[in-house]
Amino acid sequence: MTREEIFQQIQKKKSFLCVGLDTDIKKIPSHLLKEKDPIFEFNRQIIEETHEYAVAYKPNIAFYEALGSKGWDSLEKTLEIIPSEIFTISDAKRGDIGNTSSLYARAFFDNMNFDSVTVAPYMGKDSVSPFLEFEGKWAIVLALTSNEGSSDFQQLSLANNTHLYEEVLKVSQTWGTPDNLMYVVGATKAKALADIRKIVPEHFLLVPGVGAQGGSLEEVAQYGMNSKCGLLVNSSRGIIYADNSKDFAKVAKTQAKELAQEMKILLDTYL
Amino acid sequence: MTREEIFQQIQKKKSFLCVGLDTDIKKIPSHLLKEKDPIFEFNRQIIEETHEYAVAYKPNIAFYEALGSKGWDSLEKTLEIIPSEIFTISDAKRGDIGNTSSLYARAFFDNMNFDSVTVAPYMGKDSVSPFLEFEGKWAIVLALTSNEGSSDFQQLSLANNTHLYEEVLKVSQTWGTPDNLMYVVGATKAKALADIRKIVPEHFLLVPGVGAQGGSLEEVAQYGMNSKCGLLVNSSRGIIYADNSKDFAKVAKTQAKELAQEMKILLDTYL
Repeated sequence: MTREEIFQQIQKKKSFLCVGLDTDIKKIPSHLLKEKDPIFEFNRQIIEETHEYAVAYKPNIAFYEALGSKGWDSLEKTLEIIPSEIFTISDAKRGDIGNTSSLYARAFFDNMNFDSVTVAPYMGKDSVSPFLEFEGKWAIVLALTSNEGSSDFQQLSLANNTHLYEEVLKVSQTWGTPDNLMYVVGATKAKALADIRKIVPEHFLLVPGVGAQGGSLEEVAQYGMNSKCGLLVNSSRGIIYADNSKDFAKVAKTQAKELAQEMKILLDTYL
Repeated sequence: MTREEIFQQIQKKKSFLCVGLDTDIKKIPSHLLKEKDPIFEFNRQIIEETHEYAVAYKPNIAFYEALGSKGWDSLEKTLEIIPSEIFTISDAKRGDIGNTSSLYARAFFDNMNFDSVTVAPYMGKDSVSPFLEFEGKWAIVLALTSNEGSSDFQQLSLANNTHLYEEVLKVSQTWGTPDNLMYVVGATKAKALADIRKIVPEHFLLVPGVGAQGGSLEEVAQYGMNSKCGLLVNSSRGIIYADNSKDFAKVAKTQAKELAQEMKILLDTYL
């Protein structure tokens, strides 16, 4: 999928919402457990009810991998029912030496037809580049994450007076283009977005941490939006686990709609 | 498995060899392709012929994941036939926010009974700690890897005059102990091992990059060995793909035996 196609969808839906499919067998409504594939059935209903407000879906691969080969089946089936105009993100945080990263890229891009994969930068260029060699596919590099541990290394000061995450942005952007490279920047670090935009003015940013993790959507838009929106803001728990009854998908729809309505106002204000 | 048990096995076998099971369907001998599960059959024969020289086996998960749910089946079956006294390493390079890392830990430790998982440090403490909460299990944190891209970020100079990989060693060792935490240090950086040993004198180091990637086993032992050996040196391609005929496993045995003989001399010299 091209950057222009992502932007067109944002304009059409007046939303830059990414719905995180962190589907946990222990958290889904109990009436689904009698289904043949409860994880898939949960995702199917969530997608059916939220797709008019979502421009992206992001399954976190850990939730599927934890279930072994059955989990991979549920994931593959989920991918097949996501409408083709919606951007798909494999939140896998992979990264290995070159020829091994190529295998991960093939697994997610060729075997499963994801549009993008999240990638850890610690191993450097040859661990990320294999994800940039697929036409129309994207690598989404971890820059500044929303968790507490982001202060351990990402925010370290370097000898050249920048922080590690800024160096990751500066260096890794030379490996690709704003048409095949995005960055993860946590919403809990919204004020850092203004500085981040000076380094990567054009790239899309995938922003987790709004809602359950405490980030402000208003601040993310204020400091992070660019002329093509440039934001995909993810919400997982706040949407998919908003209700635990037979109405879970309808309630998820209401939550997604509310976020999309806020996003419409922010797009009208800052775009 | 405890550190003492690993050391006992090293003393018994006079070897600190880890065999990397990077089993690629495109590289295994063609006569195996008629088997029901060629990947498992390849691993079965390799393990049968090399286990008397190997103290650890390390499947790189990318090779299995690339094959979808069938690959996970081959991996699970492989785990089951590795003799229980041999240390097993899931080379997965995982790392996510806390509750998600917990899922990865459960997948590899509970579902598949691996002794250890390789972990990327970029997301900090809460991404690594969940792997340290399982009795007798290990996290192996990427410190200084053997690939070209290790110079991009790992070797950056920090404001406090250390390199990033040294900070990773210093900080992350406080999250666990030498009894549940190891580090990946590439053999191509053998001379850095002397400095690394000043920071982590007691921890085991998993050392890839000997052989195909050009690292010297002699230097690794000279600079990296401690009083409990403290080294697991991995060889993958040099052993498992040394021959491509029906004799591949016998040739793998010869290669493993040669490395183990070198290791015996180094153990006698430096331990």
